[in-house]
Amino acid sequence: MPTYTPPTKDQQFLLHDVFKISESDIPGYDELDRDFTAAILEEAGKIAANVLQPLNTVGDTEGCRLENGVVRTPTGFKAAWDEMAQGGWMGLDANPDHGGQGMPHLINTATGELFSSANMAFQMYVGLSHGAASALAVHGSDEQKQTYLPPIYEGRWSGTMNLTEPHCGTDLGLMRTKAEPQGDGSYKITGQKIWISGGENDLVENIVHLVLAKTPDAPDGIKGVSLFVVPKFLVNEDGSLGERNSLSCGGLEEKMGIHGNATCVMNYDGATGWLVGDLHKGMRAMFTMMNEARLSVALQGYTQGEVAYQNALGFAKDRLQGRDVTGVKNPDGPADPIIVHPDVRRNLMDQKSMTEGGRALVYWGAQMIDRAHRMQDADADAMISLLIPVMKGFLTDKGFETTVLAQQTLGGSGFTKEWGLEQFVRDARIAMIYEGTNGIQSLDLVGRKLPANGGKAIMAFFEMVKTFIKENEGNEALKTGFLDPLKAASKDLQAAGMYFMQEGMKNPLNALSGSYDFMHLFGHTVVGLMWAEMAKAAMEALESGASDTEFYETKIATGRYYMARQLPMTATHLARIQSGAEPVMALDAANF
Amino acid sequence: MPTYTPPTKDQQFLLHDVFKISESDIPGYDELDRDFTAAILEEAGKIAANVLQPLNTVGDTEGCRLENGVVRTPTGFKAAWDEMAQGGWMGLDANPDHGGQGMPHLINTATGELFSSANMAFQMYVGLSHGAASALAVHGSDEQKQTYLPPIYEGRWSGTMNLTEPHCGTDLGLMRTKAEPQGDGSYKITGQKIWISGGENDLVENIVHLVLAKTPDAPDGIKGVSLFVVPKFLVNEDGSLGERNSLSCGGLEEKMGIHGNATCVMNYDGATGWLVGDLHKGMRAMFTMMNEARLSVALQGYTQGEVAYQNALGFAKDRLQGRDVTGVKNPDGPADPIIVHPDVRRNLMDQKSMTEGGRALVYWGAQMIDRAHRMQDADADAMISLLIPVMKGFLTDKGFETTVLAQQTLGGSGFTKEWGLEQFVRDARIAMIYEGTNGIQSLDLVGRKLPANGGKAIMAFFEMVKTFIKENEGNEALKTGFLDPLKAASKDLQAAGMYFMQEGMKNPLNALSGSYDFMHLFGHTVVGLMWAEMAKAAMEALESGASDTEFYETKIATGRYYMARQLPMTATHLARIQSGAEPVMALDAANF
Repeated sequence: MPTYTPPTKDQQFLLHDVFKISESDIPGYDELDRDFTAAILEEAGKIAANVLQPLNTVGDTEGCRLENGVVRTPTGFKAAWDEMAQGGWMGLDANPDHGGQGMPHLINTATGELFSSANMAFQMYVGLSHGAASALAVHGSDEQKQTYLPPIYEGRWSGTMNLTEPHCGTDLGLMRTKAEPQGDGSYKITGQKIWISGGENDLVENIVHLVLAKTPDAPDGIKGVSLFVVPKFLVNEDGSLGERNSLSCGGLEEKMGIHGNATCVMNYDGATGWLVGDLHKGMRAMFTMMNEARLSVALQGYTQGEVAYQNALGFAKDRLQGRDVTGVKNPDGPADPIIVHPDVRRNLMDQKSMTEGGRALVYWGAQMIDRAHRMQDADADAMISLLIPVMKGFLTDKGFETTVLAQQTLGGSGFTKEWGLEQFVRDARIAMIYEGTNGIQSLDLVGRKLPANGGKAIMAFFEMVKTFIKENEGNEALKTGFLDPLKAASKDLQAAGMYFMQEGMKNPLNALSGSYDFMHLFGHTVVGLMWAEMAKAAMEALESGASDTEFYETKIATGRYYMARQLPMTATHLARIQSGAEPVMALDAANF
Repeated sequence: MPTYTPPTKDQQFLLHDVFKISESDIPGYDELDRDFTAAILEEAGKIAANVLQPLNTVGDTEGCRLENGVVRTPTGFKAAWDEMAQGGWMGLDANPDHGGQGMPHLINTATGELFSSANMAFQMYVGLSHGAASALAVHGSDEQKQTYLPPIYEGRWSGTMNLTEPHCGTDLGLMRTKAEPQGDGSYKITGQKIWISGGENDLVENIVHLVLAKTPDAPDGIKGVSLFVVPKFLVNEDGSLGERNSLSCGGLEEKMGIHGNATCVMNYDGATGWLVGDLHKGMRAMFTMMNEARLSVALQGYTQGEVAYQNALGFAKDRLQGRDVTGVKNPDGPADPIIVHPDVRRNLMDQKSMTEGGRALVYWGAQMIDRAHRMQDADADAMISLLIPVMKGFLTDKGFETTVLAQQTLGGSGFTKEWGLEQFVRDARIAMIYEGTNGIQSLDLVGRKLPANGGKAIMAFFEMVKTFIKENEGNEALKTGFLDPLKAASKDLQAAGMYFMQEGMKNPLNALSGSYDFMHLFGHTVVGLMWAEMAKAAMEALESGASDTEFYETKIATGRYYMARQLPMTATHLARIQSGAEPVMALDAANF
């Protein structure tokens, strides 16, 4: 059975040594000192390790069942949900006016990491409910907010997002679900939505569905889509539950992983709903929350990597096979633990360096979201908008890869259900697909975010890297191991951007054919930046006489591994990009 | 539900256009003309597509059950087994003296591809039985061969290999299973073996277990291991079945994939067995068949890639989402098929170019095995021994990667059970682990095969590449797209070998830390060589006026994609290798 230990020390290192959050000018950050975040991470860690983690295998094995229209979640999920609700974790970063705790998004991200590592399928119920609430918090009327938000943040109700239909996922302009105005301000919603996570469940009293649909006279395509709130039970004026709405769960998807989370087919049969925000602006309402939603999926990538790595490491320290080529390490045993072998270390270091780098990137992203939301900082908003597809696409690809590496550490045991590694692989796989496939992320990056405002955000990124390098060039310890490789990666990224500008201008296919590689090239570069910043912080801690020298030295060594062994991928991505569209587009569709 | 179409044309292209097998000097190849191989591939293809493929989902869903000591295979497996047995497929390349068909191993490989793509879990019963028979055919006494081989090749009996024990897999020197001589030439075998594929099953009347065990006075470690044949039912002199032997299946492993194949815990409780080959030479007996066994796993990599690619391609042609940026392709439909989008093509071309390259490599390997076995050609034996870890490690990593890419082509549908792609991912995953994990393959390559005979085999490989490039340098069409990238990759491979020689001499960890990257660097280079040879053959066919110009042009374009987009990975692998052991080994085990 797999285990999970909350990586509190690594989290605290990022929050305080690297990002020095309590010194930040972001409103609300001043109270986030070491003791405060230690206390909150400890509480969240207890729930993660003691309540959620033990249910992870249960959820995978039992899965969800649809019984007479009701989805039964796995044994223990309801009790865990209630415990999290009572702890106030559902609305940790939500507005206190609506029953939230008012914390920064960064804190919700750091605690969410723990829940997600412990039980991704369970945490999806929490996270998606939170996402729906956030959309309502921005676009809903005051009445809608007062009606729906407090019960969601109290954990009495949950929320869902309904976008996909059988014939349209990425291309939502093809949507068929109809919303007919009833003259009383309400609409009748009719259509089928699929892949609705938690669309029906037995955790809560009521489910608040946010549904994209088209009104009869709506413009064609994506511009005719509006957003509606459609509760499972209609709500009386006093907040009590009224009659059952005309919607139902028509089936559960059988899938590769996240079995503990109910993936529902939702049928709306003239269900009563109300417009959220402006008519025909449904996509905009959805996209408002996109950065937050995609950051939470980016997080899933490294959180599955983290728990998989922990278990691979445990195995590598325990399993005795073969002898260290440089000399026996375990003379009293029949063999040495496999962690002595260089190729096992290569595998573990790939896992460790990617996971810790991913965490740094996501925490940085959460701070930019706080800066954008709490300070209306347009530069932060532009930077996070540029980086979100990179974070989502790169970190979920790498998170999945990490779980596969961790599984490999265990050899044959990794393939068995008993050790649990294979579940991490199956669960992590979905993160590359939902909230916009990683291919779509790369198109969003290259087609939309990169050229936005004349490339202002990417220029700001390069400037940031350049400044960091310049400011630290005198630091010899940092220079060879970190700044030089970062400079090389950044140069590759600039060359790729230049290629897109020049050759994409002649033929857009030259840019689009390289979008996926660009996303990865960017991902490596920005994780390289994170490692350079972590190394700098660790060196400063050592210089200032920090007692835990091994911890900081380990950070530096892990970072050096990333720079030496992971960052060279940028050269290959650049070469792929510069080969252009011709090899990609050479075949007629019929000749594949 | 997934589909499978035997890729007969691609197979024939390799056998005749590229490898020109009927002109080969390998005994038995002269009769392998186009018509002959077409006929045999067609027959095998029918079984694959009509009998085995429909059972693939069944096998995954039902799995195997252990009932009162008997393993029940999934519905339909027994009938399929009998049909294959009646067709003579069980001993296709086995010695006619023992009931085989006497075909070259190449033909068994080409037909095995079809069975493996159609149903990997099923084909494992056939393949592992074949492997056990091959070991007996080489090391067994005449009496053992006459007793056990004909019923196995007739499909009345099956065979297994018993190596792993709970506490030892890679390090078989730790083995505890005991073999006590009984004075009558027989031994009593006692111990537990795990992960025994098909260790118990309801397909056959008897199961012939090959078991590694230690005699009481055996030397310590791997040198004390002997090989025994231990039948489920003892065999009477007339070949009829006698009493039940003291061995049993103690349980089935629950695992990530290949559910249709029973992974058994086997308990030997003083079971009667007989020595195979020489005392204490059990490992040598096992290793004799290693090249063949590992090639068949290499094959599993690209065969799962092939069937996954076929289904991804079907989806990409059907699914309508978005519009071609260069102009609408499907004006009568609501959207264009997603194959118009560059990033979908990038994904498909990665799948296609790797799968076809992998097939070429495996077919080349099978010919080297035939050359080594049928002509006692020591050079061919040295070359295949060098390349086997590359084929097994690289092609199974890439095969798995291909199934993941194919799954991604389907977006959300790829994650559902309904479309079947996720099964290919789960099934392909095991090939990276069994028959020696891919990490072990890389150690075998760098620690054993590379330095063998003063590096004679790797030198011969470089010479082969050099000669090919030199002979074809006048071919302008080949030069830019194929020879130049091949030369660059080969140079990277040489630089890596040089690094190992120089720095590995100073510190063996410098070589061992780069072993995995070297395996991949080698893999890309040799698949690059395969593509250059395929492109040359396709160009020759076009020049000689072949009618199917689109087929050959597609080959060339697919090859150009590989050279432009996959081969640049060699630079990254070289950089990782040249960073040496320091970043890999920096941490104390306690500091991970």
